[in-house]
Amino acid sequence: MGELRGACIFGQSGGPTAVINASAYGVISQALKEDCITNVYAAEYGIKGVLADKLFDMGQEDPRELAFLMNTPSSAFGSCRYKLKDPDLDETEYKKILEVFEKHNVRYFFYNGGNDSMDTCSKISKYMQRVGYECRVMGVPKTIDNDLYGTDHCPGFPSAAKYIATSVMEVMQDARVYGAGHICVMEIMGRNAGWLTASSVLGRVNGYAPDLVYLPEMQFDFERFLGDVVRVYKEKGTVLVAASEGLKFPDGSFVSEAKTSATDGFGHAQLGGLATILSGLVAQTLGTKVRGIELSLLQRCAAHCASGTDIEEAVRSGQRAVTAAVDGVTDKMVAIERTYTEDGQYVSGLKLLNLSEVANYEKKFPRDWINEEGNNIRDEFIDYALPLIQGHVAIPREHELPRYARLKKIYAE
Amino acid sequence: MGELRGACIFGQSGGPTAVINASAYGVISQALKEDCITNVYAAEYGIKGVLADKLFDMGQEDPRELAFLMNTPSSAFGSCRYKLKDPDLDETEYKKILEVFEKHNVRYFFYNGGNDSMDTCSKISKYMQRVGYECRVMGVPKTIDNDLYGTDHCPGFPSAAKYIATSVMEVMQDARVYGAGHICVMEIMGRNAGWLTASSVLGRVNGYAPDLVYLPEMQFDFERFLGDVVRVYKEKGTVLVAASEGLKFPDGSFVSEAKTSATDGFGHAQLGGLATILSGLVAQTLGTKVRGIELSLLQRCAAHCASGTDIEEAVRSGQRAVTAAVDGVTDKMVAIERTYTEDGQYVSGLKLLNLSEVANYEKKFPRDWINEEGNNIRDEFIDYALPLIQGHVAIPREHELPRYARLKKIYAE
Repeated sequence: MGELRGACIFGQSGGPTAVINASAYGVISQALKEDCITNVYAAEYGIKGVLADKLFDMGQEDPRELAFLMNTPSSAFGSCRYKLKDPDLDETEYKKILEVFEKHNVRYFFYNGGNDSMDTCSKISKYMQRVGYECRVMGVPKTIDNDLYGTDHCPGFPSAAKYIATSVMEVMQDARVYGAGHICVMEIMGRNAGWLTASSVLGRVNGYAPDLVYLPEMQFDFERFLGDVVRVYKEKGTVLVAASEGLKFPDGSFVSEAKTSATDGFGHAQLGGLATILSGLVAQTLGTKVRGIELSLLQRCAAHCASGTDIEEAVRSGQRAVTAAVDGVTDKMVAIERTYTEDGQYVSGLKLLNLSEVANYEKKFPRDWINEEGNNIRDEFIDYALPLIQGHVAIPREHELPRYARLKKIYAE
Repeated sequence: MGELRGACIFGQSGGPTAVINASAYGVISQALKEDCITNVYAAEYGIKGVLADKLFDMGQEDPRELAFLMNTPSSAFGSCRYKLKDPDLDETEYKKILEVFEKHNVRYFFYNGGNDSMDTCSKISKYMQRVGYECRVMGVPKTIDNDLYGTDHCPGFPSAAKYIATSVMEVMQDARVYGAGHICVMEIMGRNAGWLTASSVLGRVNGYAPDLVYLPEMQFDFERFLGDVVRVYKEKGTVLVAASEGLKFPDGSFVSEAKTSATDGFGHAQLGGLATILSGLVAQTLGTKVRGIELSLLQRCAAHCASGTDIEEAVRSGQRAVTAAVDGVTDKMVAIERTYTEDGQYVSGLKLLNLSEVANYEKKFPRDWINEEGNNIRDEFIDYALPLIQGHVAIPREHELPRYARLKKIYAE
C-alpha cells in the first residue's frame, strides 16, 4: 500500500450519544496530524451532508474548541437516519457522492454510527472500488443500544448505562421516602436490545436495583407482569420496575403502541409511551397510585454523567480508524476487545472487523444473563458492564453549567 | 434563658430534595456536640414517627456514615405529608406528642420542611407553651419549589435548578441533531410556583435556553400557546418549550388534569401528564412529531448534580437551628439572607423568622421577571439564581456509582 494523499470526510449517523463527539475528536485531531491527509472535513447531517456537498472545514477550527468535543453530547455536526439505496438498483446517490469526493479529492471516509451506518460505509466502499476511485472507508462504532456485532461493547453505551444506574439509585432513594405504597415503572431506551434496561441493575453493587426488569429479548406477557408486580408489592410494599421501550407482545407488536386493544386494560387511545401504559395498567389492577418515569432523551445525552472509560475508548476508536486508513486499511470497522490484567483489571484493546461482517446485524442481550423467570438480570451482566462505567469525568463548566464546543462550522470552498 | 437540658427530635417533612439530608446532617452533627442535648433522635416519617414513638437514636450511628448524608438525596429517615389538626378542635394528636416528648425528655424539636411543616412546628410549639411543657421548636427550611416566604431562597431549590438547567442544555444539544423539525415540551415540577420551570433558562448564559417558558403564575391559554409554538416553529424550525406541571386554565383547573374537555384537542381520557397533553395537542395542530419529556422525580433527587452552595447552606441552616435553640431561641425558622461583597460576589447569611410569619404562605415567582407576553423569563431571574447553583460537588462514589449513607437506624429504647 503506497501513500494515499487527499482529503478526508468524517460523518456522524444515527441517534446521538454522550460520546459520539469524542469519537469525532479522535478522528479529526488525528486526521489533522497526518501529512497525507490534505483537508479534514466534517459532513453536516452525516451522509446527507456528503450528498448535499455541505462539508465543514475542520482546518479552520480552533484546536482548543475541538478539544471541547470530548465533553459535548449529541452530534456536533448533525446526524441523519438515512439508508442509501442498493447501488445495483439505483446508482444516483452514489454518483453524487463520487462527484463530491472527486471535487474535494476525498480519499478517506470515516463514518461514525451503528449497524445501518456500517452498511452505508460498506456500500460506498464497494461502489468506489467498482468505479475505480481509490478511497479508504472506515467505520467508527457508536450506539447507546450496545447492539453492534463483533465488538465487546460500543462507545456510547457505557455513559448511558452509568446515567441510567445513577438515576435508578436516585429514584429508589426518593421512592421509599413515605414508606410502603410506592410503585414506579421506569421506561428505558432500546427498541430491540435490552442492554440499557439491564443497566438499571448496576447499582445492585451498592444496594440499589429495580425489583423487576423486562427486556425486549423476552416476550412480554401482561398477566405474568401483573402477577410479578402484585407479588413484590405484597412482599415489600414498594415496587420498582425497569422496562424497555421495546417490549413486545408474543405477536411481535410493541406494547408501547397498544391502542384500544383486546386487552382489558385498554379502553381508550394512549398518547403516552410504555411507562404510561404499564403504570396505568398496574394502577387499575391494584387501585393505587403508580408513577411512570420515562428517561427519554436524557439517557443518551447526559454528558455530565459520562463514563471516563467510554470517552477514552471513543476518542481512541476514532484515532485508530484514521491511523489504520493511513496505513492502507479499508473496509473495516474499529471494534473494542476486552482483556484483563493478571490482577483482574479491565483493559480494552482495539481490533478491526470487516464492515460486511458487522453491517445490519444486531447483538441481543444474552438469555444466560436474564434470570429463569425472565424478570431480572443476573450478576454476570454486572461483571461485564461495571468496568465500562468507571472513570469520573469533570466536564468543562462555565457559570457552573456545561461548556460545550463552540465551532465556527465554515463550509468548505 | 437558662440552659435547657434534654433530648432533641429532628424530623423531615414534605417532598424530598437533593439536600434535605444535608440539613439533617447539620442538625444532627451539631446536636451531638451540644452538652445540654442529652440524646439526638431522628423521627421516622417525620411527625408520624413522633406520634408513633418511632425514633432513631443518632448517638448509635457511626459519625463517618452520618457525614455521607451530605450527598445522599431524598429523606434518609422517611418523610410524610401530614397536617396536624387544629388543637382548638382536637387535641388528641398533641397529647400523644406531649406523651412522647415527656417519655424521652424531649426539649428541642427541629423540623425540616416547607410551608405546611412550619405550620406543624408552630402548632406544636403553641400547644407545648399552653400546657406549660418547656420545649424549643425550630424550623429548618426545605423545598425544591422555592416558594417559602421570607427567605431569599430555599435549600433544595438550587440543586434542582442546576439539574434542570443542565438537562435542558443536554436535551437542546440532542434535539437539534437532525436539523429542523424538532419540537419538544419539557414538563417541570411546581404546582403553584414557577421557580423550577424558570430555572430552565439558566443555560442562557452559555447559549442554551428554551424558546418558550410557561409558569403557573400566568393563566394558561391554549390558543395563545399554540400561536407561540407555531410562530417559533416557522422562524426557527425547532421549538423547545418548558412548562410547569402546575399550569392552570383561567377557571383555575389544572391543564394536566384536562380530560375529555370542551377544548378541541381532547377527545379521550389522558393518562399521561402535562407534557403528554401539550405535546399531543401541538402534534395534532402541526401534524408533526412532538416529544414530551417529564423530568419527574429525577429533578428533586439528583444529588449527583447538586449545587455545592446549596449543600453548604443546607448544612449551615441545620446547624444554626440547633445553636439558636441552645441559646434560648424558639418558634423561629432559619432563613437565608443574600448579600454581595464589594466586588459583587454572592454571600449568604442566615437570619431567624417567626414561624407564624412563614407558615402557610407561598412565595410566587415575581411578575416582573416574566416577559410582557408571559411566555419567557427575563435575565433578572438569572442574576438571582445563577449564584445559587455554583460550587461543583464530587459526590462519594463506590464502584463509580453514588455511595449513600448506610445508617443503622436503631430505635430509641
